[in-house]
Amino acid sequence: MKWKQLNDGDLRSFAVIFDSGDEVVRDLTTFAQEQKLTAAQFTGIGAFQRVTLGFFDWESKDYEEIPVDEQVEVVALLGDIAVGADDAPALHPHVVVSRRDGSALGGHLLKGTVRPTLEVVLHETPAHLRRCKDKETGLALISI
Amino acid sequence: MKWKQLNDGDLRSFAVIFDSGDEVVRDLTTFAQEQKLTAAQFTGIGAFQRVTLGFFDWESKDYEEIPVDEQVEVVALLGDIAVGADDAPALHPHVVVSRRDGSALGGHLLKGTVRPTLEVVLHETPAHLRRCKDKETGLALISI
Amino acid sequence: MKWKQLNDGDLRSFAVIFDSGDEVVRDLTTFAQEQKLTAAQFTGIGAFQRVTLGFFDWESKDYEEIPVDEQVEVVALLGDIAVGADDAPALHPHVVVSRRDGSALGGHLLKGTVRPTLEVVLHETPAHLRRCKDKETGLALISI
Repeated sequence: MKWKQLNDGDLRSFAVIFDSGDEVVRDLTTFAQEQKLTAAQFTGIGAFQRVTLGFFDWESKDYEEIPVDEQVEVVALLGDIAVGADDAPALHPHVVVSRRDGSALGGHLLKGTVRPTLEVVLHETPAHLRRCKDKETGLALISI
Repeated sequence: MKWKQLNDGDLRSFAVIFDSGDEVVRDLTTFAQEQKLTAAQFTGIGAFQRVTLGFFDWESKDYEEIPVDEQVEVVALLGDIAVGADDAPALHPHVVVSRRDGSALGGHLLKGTVRPTLEVVLHETPAHLRRCKDKETGLALISI
Repeated sequence: MKWKQLNDGDLRSFAVIFDSGDEVVRDLTTFAQEQKLTAAQFTGIGAFQRVTLGFFDWESKDYEEIPVDEQVEVVALLGDIAVGADDAPALHPHVVVSRRDGSALGGHLLKGTVRPTLEVVLHETPAHLRRCKDKETGLALISI
């Protein structure tokens, strides 16, 4: 994974380019922590060697894992970064991927292994957004 | 639905966070009217309890409704706001949602009921864009 | 295809509105060349009369074509522009489209014929990003 800051202003923008074998959720979380990003948005396109999608189950209040063990195009990665209860940046990434026949799958991005590239552009936003644990769901939701 | 202005500049950005039970198309249109947004773009992720997608039928020149009566992840909400014939802000929202098995559905967003959250970030754009009724389709298309 | 510059700053933003019959990949590449865009991001929504999606085959190191010969909604077009080996702007567009029954398809956008409209918003980014031919895949990947 390599990155480049795209501007010099108060609000930073970055291009973050992942290589084959990089795991996106782990590496982007580390990047956000290192850069002390407290509020940001990102989008990305590229391809995964394999990916684990998540579907939030309303009964169990937990993510069901949907493993996709094949090469897929990453057609739309959208997410945001906010500060969690422990003051560390928390990632909320959703993704659409597509298979060899063009069929699209989507969900919360739990884990994605890049091949050969994933191009993410990340824009810092000015106001701090904070995630708080929601009592009903147990999820860390943005609280205003 | 709660919102927070993210900056102080001439061009405003907002985080708009929807709660369980909120209907997005209605509430985001109201928000745009209250804020007098004449040109803006937005993206969002989260989840719906149920959603009605639209497919524009070229023969009837109207949207066919595709009701999806189940909990789905909102994996990519993309849209823009422009001023319509009546000078009021008009919303153009498209959405990709995903089901428990990961399969993705998409279309024009006609109606979406949030559960438990939908996080929308909206950026005002500087020039006014105006929608005019297209004679052939009857649709309000952006006219330059 | 018509376009409007949305701001006067150093970093330009554009609304690019395509009409029925326009082919997006060709026309957006031409636009990027005419405007000398060396680093930009874009998103879009609208509809295609027909579209050819691409899936990068890891064995043959080439795109498999997935022709979709029907009217589809363009639910999420995401892409970026960087400078290629020949110093000309190179487009990297990924897309999610949806069919009459709501089912979503996705992939690299090889060719898309608009009907009746496609609304693209394009933002220039400050730093130049350069694509270089990757030895393993033959793809032009962003190099930092």
